[in-house]
Amino acid sequence: MEQRISLITLGVADVARAKAFYEQLGWQGQEVEETVFFQAGGLALVLWSRDKLADDAGIEGPGTGAMTLAQNVRSQAEVDEVIATAVKAGATVTKPARETFYGGYAGYFADPDGHLWEIAWNPGFTLADDGSLTVPDFSAMN
Amino acid sequence: MEQRISLITLGVADVARAKAFYEQLGWQGQEVEETVFFQAGGLALVLWSRDKLADDAGIEGPGTGAMTLAQNVRSQAEVDEVIATAVKAGATVTKPARETFYGGYAGYFADPDGHLWEIAWNPGFTLADDGSLTVPDFSAMN
Repeated sequence: MEQRISLITLGVADVARAKAFYEQLGWQGQEVEETVFFQAGGLALVLWSRDKLADDAGIEGPGTGAMTLAQNVRSQAEVDEVIATAVKAGATVTKPARETFYGGYAGYFADPDGHLWEIAWNPGFTLADDGSLTVPDFSAMN
Repeated sequence: MEQRISLITLGVADVARAKAFYEQLGWQGQEVEETVFFQAGGLALVLWSRDKLADDAGIEGPGTGAMTLAQNVRSQAEVDEVIATAVKAGATVTKPARETFYGGYAGYFADPDGHLWEIAWNPGFTLADDGSLTVPDFSAMN
């Protein structure tokens, strides 16, 4: 199995509501057959009916929980800006932004369906101009 | 907010067990402070204690469920191969691979913590040589 991810699909209660939320964050997607696709770097974030997703995956319940998305940004100020934008769009802050143990600054919000996003400034992780993230060589950091 | 994702964190019951599973799929990561980072294209897939994740995110429960990961591959045969590899590594098939409504072929498995992966061959989605996926222009497909 190659070491990559093609799509992340968020099961949502109301596709139109979820689409409106991400559009208010400034994201632009395409809706086709009640499914919304956002190009996000080399993969796609997809919004789809929670019931259809469960049915498609062959499971009964809503899934497993305990999965979060994160966007790393370029400054502490940008963390605050993104979280403020999300709140205006209808997000709930689950953890206000604060300094982190690794010398960064981060907070979490939940989207209208409860999907968690961490917005973080982490000076130890390299962000390329195109926004792609490179995991540092931890063995060289000691 | 920029339209990109930096990390996907899977909350797991046992980091060592989860790491062993992904390594059996052929993935190579780095473990630092009981956290495993896998570089996956321009983002990172992270394995972390489910309890620590919930605490870090400021939530009580395990999360929201209803989120899946997907890897698109290059042939029907590769779908079967990847799912067989996952089963050998300890995955549970939740939906055996079959032909899809969009003319593709796909199935789902759950990793040891129940996180769902869809493995799909979709002739309508472009996969670059580096594995990055480009959402098609649906408006041009009618």
